Amino acid sequence: MFTGLSAFPLTPMNEQGINEHEFIQLVARLAQAKVDSIGVLGSTGSYAYLSVEERARVARLSVENAAEVPVVVGIGALRTRDVLANAEHAQQAGASGLLLAPVSYQKLTDDDVFNLFSTVSRAISVPLCVYDNPGTTHFTFSDELHGRIAALPQVRSIKIPPVPNDLHDASARVARLRALIPNDVTIGISGDPAAATGLLAGCEAWYSVFGGLYPEHALALTRAAQEGDAEQTLAHSNALAALWALYHEHGGSLRVAATMAELTGRVSAPCLPQPLNTLQGQARQQVKAVIEALGLR
Amino acid sequence: MFTGLSAFPLTPMNEQGINEHEFIQLVARLAQAKVDSIGVLGSTGSYAYLSVEERARVARLSVENAAEVPVVVGIGALRTRDVLANAEHAQQAGASGLLLAPVSYQKLTDDDVFNLFSTVSRAISVPLCVYDNPGTTHFTFSDELHGRIAALPQVRSIKIPPVPNDLHDASARVARLRALIPNDVTIGISGDPAAATGLLAGCEAWYSVFGGLYPEHALALTRAAQEGDAEQTLAHSNALAALWALYHEHGGSLRVAATMAELTGRVSAPCLPQPLNTLQGQARQQVKAVIEALGLR
Repeated sequence: MFTGLSAFPLTPMNEQGINEHEFIQLVARLAQAKVDSIGVLGSTGSYAYLSVEERARVARLSVENAAEVPVVVGIGALRTRDVLANAEHAQQAGASGLLLAPVSYQKLTDDDVFNLFSTVSRAISVPLCVYDNPGTTHFTFSDELHGRIAALPQVRSIKIPPVPNDLHDASARVARLRALIPNDVTIGISGDPAAATGLLAGCEAWYSVFGGLYPEHALALTRAAQEGDAEQTLAHSNALAALWALYHEHGGSLRVAATMAELTGRVSAPCLPQPLNTLQGQARQQVKAVIEALGLR
Repeated sequence: MFTGLSAFPLTPMNEQGINEHEFIQLVARLAQAKVDSIGVLGSTGSYAYLSVEERARVARLSVENAAEVPVVVGIGALRTRDVLANAEHAQQAGASGLLLAPVSYQKLTDDDVFNLFSTVSRAISVPLCVYDNPGTTHFTFSDELHGRIAALPQVRSIKIPPVPNDLHDASARVARLRALIPNDVTIGISGDPAAATGLLAGCEAWYSVFGGLYPEHALALTRAAQEGDAEQTLAHSNALAALWALYHEHGGSLRVAATMAELTGRVSAPCLPQPLNTLQGQARQQVKAVIEALGLR
């Protein structure tokens, strides 16, 4: 399950609640495209902004509408108590896997994070992916800590932040981590602009925001990489360079992806929880121009 | 209310819930010492780790046990919806003031933060303190943004992070901010080791973790500063240098203060929400030695 394309849908919402109809449509489209897994309630799914009850509901809707595609559910929260509740609800909903980031308010120590994963791994019965995202969690994993956590029961994948642009450097980075983790734990790349390089450098999975909106495009890139066709893989990514530039300009993928979803009518505006906002004004026009130039309807 | 010593108590808790009896005792002790205000559900009060319902309960317990001392309640949350709910509950409980930090998971823009404060300031009827704590929120205020927010209705104070150690530099920093905000908005220092310098540099308030456990000591420092006695103010702070060194060594005040509270029997161990922990092993022995050396029973 933690290989190939894992597509991460938005959770469209406004101040009144989650737009369940639109969420179901996003999930159903990913199921229809036959992505390798659907990753709900990731950072793209705004998990951190939802209540425990809302997250349980999203987990249920996901599994009900994912057809045969495995659903991975994000369970991260500031407090271990809430992580355990999210895990229980996701499992009850039929999740095939769980995704856990060490979210922080007070700075976490390595021991705090190891103990969190240790507690959770002993409480669950489905595979777990370690979510390493220092940009949002403000926790930086050492490879040594990754090695200790990857040896825990149920841990089967690590979602890593972008690798270096240079393929040689990227391969070395993946190899260093691989040497410290068990054979049955996969490494997955996140940060869409780094996906092609990450897959060519030996990552077995792409945890993809772009794939949550455009699964066919993301599958084409993923399959090219899986077939070892470096040229095609990079060509798919380079064709989207204008989109990656928008990610860089606007502090990551979420606001750009959410703006694209609004502009293409996949979700109603606004779709992000306040105080977050999609891009407006000139930035929104830029996104519109990129959608049209790249044919991303 | 946003002047003098604002003392921030811990919210003692474990995985089963809040220890209300111990919390009430902490608040009552601050009321008895006649601090200028009691700041509950600050970072020290672990607000970010509690549910909306638990926070409403803590606000009620605080006002009920604070005698005549004004209670300021922290209302920060990742989502504007939850901030507004916290504000409503705190006001219903009888809070005299509110404290709001721009907590983030996705990185916030200046516009996001201004709109958050604008929305909240229009929804409340009691004074608001802007909580600027980049170490936990990962949002950095520009002075220009402080100026815009300080002009909003209800905003009456800014809780700033530590000033430079040098008094001349600290005074310049406070003066720069002062020039951009209305006359009825106070500036309060946070970061206990910087309190003496901050107060001498012109801050009108000390938002104090130390004062939440040792109100008499903190009041002595605050009153010396208010009387313009720089020598006494610095002497009070320098007497606690060994404690400030522990803060620096252990990533801030929370774990040290919580460990002190456990070691002195003010709260039961554990008192922090998992995955956070108080200091153990050698670090705990260090804290114990400092408590004894400084006579902080």
